[in-house]
Amino acid sequence: AMSLLSFARLLTKQADGVVQRHKPAHSVALVGAPFSRGQKRRGVDHGPAAIRNAGLLERLSGLGCQVYDFGDLIFTQVPNDEVYNKLVKYPRSVGLASQVLADAVSGAVAAGHSCVTVGGDHSLALGSISGHTRQYPHLSVIWVDAHADINTPLTTQSGNLHGQPVSFLLRELQDKMPQLPGFSWLKPCLSSSDIVYIGLRDVDPAEHYILKNYDIQYFSMRDIDRLGIQKVMERTLDHLTGRRQSPIHLSFDIDAFDPSLAPATGTPVLGGLTYREGMYIAEEIHNTGLLSAVDLVEVNPLLVATQEQANATASLAVDVIATCFGQTREGAHVVYDDLPTPSSPDESDSEEQVRI
Amino acid sequence: AMSLLSFARLLTKQADGVVQRHKPAHSVALVGAPFSRGQKRRGVDHGPAAIRNAGLLERLSGLGCQVYDFGDLIFTQVPNDEVYNKLVKYPRSVGLASQVLADAVSGAVAAGHSCVTVGGDHSLALGSISGHTRQYPHLSVIWVDAHADINTPLTTQSGNLHGQPVSFLLRELQDKMPQLPGFSWLKPCLSSSDIVYIGLRDVDPAEHYILKNYDIQYFSMRDIDRLGIQKVMERTLDHLTGRRQSPIHLSFDIDAFDPSLAPATGTPVLGGLTYREGMYIAEEIHNTGLLSAVDLVEVNPLLVATQEQANATASLAVDVIATCFGQTREGAHVVYDDLPTPSSPDESDSEEQVRI
Amino acid sequence: AMSLLSFARLLTKQADGVVQRHKPAHSVALVGAPFSRGQKRRGVDHGPAAIRNAGLLERLSGLGCQVYDFGDLIFTQVPNDEVYNKLVKYPRSVGLASQVLADAVSGAVAAGHSCVTVGGDHSLALGSISGHTRQYPHLSVIWVDAHADINTPLTTQSGNLHGQPVSFLLRELQDKMPQLPGFSWLKPCLSSSDIVYIGLRDVDPAEHYILKNYDIQYFSMRDIDRLGIQKVMERTLDHLTGRRQSPIHLSFDIDAFDPSLAPATGTPVLGGLTYREGMYIAEEIHNTGLLSAVDLVEVNPLLVATQEQANATASLAVDVIATCFGQTREGAHVVYDDLPTPSSPDESDSEEQVRI
Repeated sequence: AMSLLSFARLLTKQADGVVQRHKPAHSVALVGAPFSRGQKRRGVDHGPAAIRNAGLLERLSGLGCQVYDFGDLIFTQVPNDEVYNKLVKYPRSVGLASQVLADAVSGAVAAGHSCVTVGGDHSLALGSISGHTRQYPHLSVIWVDAHADINTPLTTQSGNLHGQPVSFLLRELQDKMPQLPGFSWLKPCLSSSDIVYIGLRDVDPAEHYILKNYDIQYFSMRDIDRLGIQKVMERTLDHLTGRRQSPIHLSFDIDAFDPSLAPATGTPVLGGLTYREGMYIAEEIHNTGLLSAVDLVEVNPLLVATQEQANATASLAVDVIATCFGQTREGAHVVYDDLPTPSSPDESDSEEQVRI
Repeated sequence: AMSLLSFARLLTKQADGVVQRHKPAHSVALVGAPFSRGQKRRGVDHGPAAIRNAGLLERLSGLGCQVYDFGDLIFTQVPNDEVYNKLVKYPRSVGLASQVLADAVSGAVAAGHSCVTVGGDHSLALGSISGHTRQYPHLSVIWVDAHADINTPLTTQSGNLHGQPVSFLLRELQDKMPQLPGFSWLKPCLSSSDIVYIGLRDVDPAEHYILKNYDIQYFSMRDIDRLGIQKVMERTLDHLTGRRQSPIHLSFDIDAFDPSLAPATGTPVLGGLTYREGMYIAEEIHNTGLLSAVDLVEVNPLLVATQEQANATASLAVDVIATCFGQTREGAHVVYDDLPTPSSPDESDSEEQVRI
Repeated sequence: AMSLLSFARLLTKQADGVVQRHKPAHSVALVGAPFSRGQKRRGVDHGPAAIRNAGLLERLSGLGCQVYDFGDLIFTQVPNDEVYNKLVKYPRSVGLASQVLADAVSGAVAAGHSCVTVGGDHSLALGSISGHTRQYPHLSVIWVDAHADINTPLTTQSGNLHGQPVSFLLRELQDKMPQLPGFSWLKPCLSSSDIVYIGLRDVDPAEHYILKNYDIQYFSMRDIDRLGIQKVMERTLDHLTGRRQSPIHLSFDIDAFDPSLAPATGTPVLGGLTYREGMYIAEEIHNTGLLSAVDLVEVNPLLVATQEQANATASLAVDVIATCFGQTREGAHVVYDDLPTPSSPDESDSEEQVRI
């Protein structure tokens, strides 16, 4: 495995002698994953384009990140991808797409990048987390979502695989898991103590049973209401990084936000995160210095009444990712050593002011 | 008086041997009260229909409640219902309607149901609380509202009786109360220590005097801002149930919510409860196990620019009521004993998956 | 200097013998400052009219304030107001307008009024704070804003002076300040310990450097997320009034609020104050009894899609100002000595009820 994060340190000495010391910059790989077969509604495969159009690359570059755009993955459709067990849809397509993504994420992380996967639906986390664990066998996963996505193929009611990825990843659940066609490559790679949920508010009964019986740490919206987001993040990071400093994989479903902020998504649920809570979560994860990969999924720009709503949702996704990589609400991403000083009482003819 | 709440316990054994144990179900009586004479604006009598159309019955049934729909009460108009004291409007109509509702609520509670009254304007609480106390003389009342509704007929500025019901109910205020035509049946049935307000933000000076001088516990929006909703509910329940475990009557005015969430109401006031705070209040009341009756009032589907706003407001009312009867944000209303287990490595031909 | 605030005490004895004791009323001078040259977008000079149309005078009068309307100041355009240092725009216009405003505010405060300046852009604070300190040399300034407005003419990127006023006011920064044409009248009048920021979320790197290196107390939106607004106000007031009870100058930029609440402004930033947080800030400042002047700036009624949005923004500005002068969410601005009592069981012919 590689060193956790490779930073480039930039020191710029300007003409006037003022030194601007940029903070360590991230090297970020961007992987588009326009995949939609983990759920029923058309349009979520337009998510990567919408998030790119909202300025993701420019924002990351503006923060001093070196961005390597891997482009959008191409997912081939699997012919005759029949329903499994009369219910579970497109198992072979989901399995193959996740396999392709796993290779991409593994490669990006191996090359020393932090890896950002832009979806696409949340079944993709099968691939991104699997690929990530190939480089770092001990990951901490923070799953920000309205839903737990932890049904098994035997408990799902909808049959959609975007509601099931976590069950495939947890070692402790494997005796409850049937073998799905297209999933033979997949090995469970997380323990139930390696994941923390934030933002849950629509949890199926079987999912609730799993969360409780496998001792999975979660903070529902009710918990956020009780504790406040500050304590929720404190406990999340204590739980995950208290023992050892593992790299963090953030899997962020845009539907964690309130539908008034993120209307362009397939399964909105009232009573979600505020903008400020979402930014706080990302700030705290950035501040650990341990973030190694991010999924940003379920932006579906077609499911809205107005283009403005689609743009707002995509822009929110960009804000989450940018904050993960150092954007702050206190403006500290460039560090000054000193302020420019006027050379004379009136220097209206001077050229010495700093352009930052 | 009856036993507090009669629960039906449901145990379902399915074909595959997995037992689903439903939590104790509530037996709920639903009373529609399309009454609007407690205030001036037309349309609040359409509240019951709007809330039914938003799926109230289905949602309660889905939670395992046995719902007994008492239909909508018919309120006869009282002829020559002249203004009292040159100001107070429709005293005889309000008095009679509340008397009719009191009988219905009393009967429903006597029959062992939790009683849900869907209004209509808030003057109806005169009836629902009076009827409720016939069965349980010692009630705890939680009044969630932007307004205190505690003017007397001698302090009211608007003359609308929906701004006065609490003054008629409190024993301590009776020397300040004139006798209104149509109100001779009504006996004060609460002490000032039996009620707690949540959500106040538009309180008349005389109301403020009453709250302060009669030692009535209230949590204004400012108090919620200071304390947080968690502490507000903790103190509310300590105050009401610390001494004895009385049944709870929740009287919920939809205008407690912020107007951005509940625009379809007659007297909206900025700076109200968030969706999450409203759900938290209902969750905490449900968790006491003491809830015995609910009023949900002041949904006026005519006072909006778009049908969408009316639907959102009615749907919010349904969310409050459903949460009062066990809907959670953590999905626990069905309790599993075990998860389904695959019988073979690939059981794509199996029929054994659970449908919940 | 004058006595801090001159209060009129009103005692009204009504016909029925009930005494209404109004709380001390404020004497308020209202100064309109339709100035827009501190920034680029047209329309912010319509701010004073929009805020007046939203009912400011009536609301203050309704609270028992004596309002002296000084009308709108007339700002003459300075000819040949060339860009300073190839970047800083309209220095002479900003300097002159601020000088005019300083005289008005100084005069109003000298006459015993609390002074409300309604803008206009935030460069005006140069004038209002300068004028205010002529009467009270030791001021406490609370600056509520999405932005720190503390760039120097040598660090600004936009060149707009509404992003720079604080740098001119702080004594500690003077060796970093060039002398701008039109600013010779201005003397720095604050120490860096005299100001507290609330609401920051878009801070330039140089501004961040200044905040940190000059030990300026600030509470960003992230700090509000961590601490809650109650603790933020407690610490703000401890910091400012812990040492001595100086008069408070509140400089409130409407863009401190979330853009969903205050869309009609020139530089909106997501993730701002809620309505309730804004009211809480104003309530706490009122409760100190030390408020002596208020700026309410950056309402730009032209920068919206609908008239409704402009009205909502102006109305929000009125709510902030009214709350600064005693409007509460608990309705206590009139104090009762007793409630009216019915003289007979039925007093429908009585005239004795109180009109408040």
